Amino acid sequence: MSSSVLYMSMSLDGYIAGPNDEPGNPGGDGAAVERLHAWGYTVAGDVRRSGPAGELAEAMEATGAVLAGRRTVEQVDHWKGDHHGVPIFVPSHRPPGPSVASYPLVTYVTDGIASAMAQAKAAAGDRDVMVQGAYTAQRAIEAGVLDEMQIHQIPVLLGAGRRLFEVLQSRVELEIVRVIDTPEATHIRYRIHR
Amino acid sequence: MSSSVLYMSMSLDGYIAGPNDEPGNPGGDGAAVERLHAWGYTVAGDVRRSGPAGELAEAMEATGAVLAGRRTVEQVDHWKGDHHGVPIFVPSHRPPGPSVASYPLVTYVTDGIASAMAQAKAAAGDRDVMVQGAYTAQRAIEAGVLDEMQIHQIPVLLGAGRRLFEVLQSRVELEIVRVIDTPEATHIRYRIHR
Repeated sequence: MSSSVLYMSMSLDGYIAGPNDEPGNPGGDGAAVERLHAWGYTVAGDVRRSGPAGELAEAMEATGAVLAGRRTVEQVDHWKGDHHGVPIFVPSHRPPGPSVASYPLVTYVTDGIASAMAQAKAAAGDRDVMVQGAYTAQRAIEAGVLDEMQIHQIPVLLGAGRRLFEVLQSRVELEIVRVIDTPEATHIRYRIHR
Repeated sequence: MSSSVLYMSMSLDGYIAGPNDEPGNPGGDGAAVERLHAWGYTVAGDVRRSGPAGELAEAMEATGAVLAGRRTVEQVDHWKGDHHGVPIFVPSHRPPGPSVASYPLVTYVTDGIASAMAQAKAAAGDRDVMVQGAYTAQRAIEAGVLDEMQIHQIPVLLGAGRRLFEVLQSRVELEIVRVIDTPEATHIRYRIHR
């Protein structure tokens, strides 16, 4: 059974980006994003391919579709149309920007997040769907279409920036699926109860 | 070597109490605090004495002094003057309320958090100091007098309430000392870098 999974690196105080995280300043000030994602890279700057970090990178790359928020995709211009070769779905009520016409794997979905997730799951087949974007993840939780969260909890307090959980309105119970304990991060996988 | 340790149960979205957490409504609305502390109690409502939860309760009860914020102590009227029998220190610039005169173990410290911590550490001897209160913990971090945090991370999203980390101004690096993985909570102990 295929799952939709949010993958997110978060500081202990709940931040996923620095202050002023906007297009033109992706990730915000203070190299916050670099700090939060350091666990996944070697000192030389390559993606870690061994140990728990390597396994987690492999799991992400094994997903069969991406569902990402508009803020996320516009900050990186839709990864130039290619996120590990799989279809990319963007729920948005506004029409896409001009670059999207040249990205055959990118689909904008205008009729809501549930529809976008259904299309992503259909495209992924028996593989998981990777979810990206804080706002989109919370909307997916509220719509009942987010199955799991893989949180990489980073041993740092950032003190400022953009939080992962900011707009959720209701209480949601979670189940701890797996904890991977490393010095660089506590990787906790949660299943969302519905 | 004695350490000052914040013990705190926190939801994945960073809340330690529900909305409207005030004297007269301690812990706030929606039984948030009961949800966050459920890991420490049996179904019958007793403190858990076995397993990881039992060990954590034992560690808390082995502390030799308490340093607690004014909001915290006033919500519970200074635990009627008795928190597992050890001295209680309250950093506050305002004089204490009238009940404190009858609590010989409670000391208000008016010359700042560093002084309050020094007195608490002296009273605790070679035992740890238990720190209570979100605001006080953050002030202690900024003053460089908080050594560790024992965070009980609870698999729930509360969506609203009072956050643990709200007023911290600067980036603080942490070291993961120990992770205890249970279905009810992920207990992570951090050492604060200075």
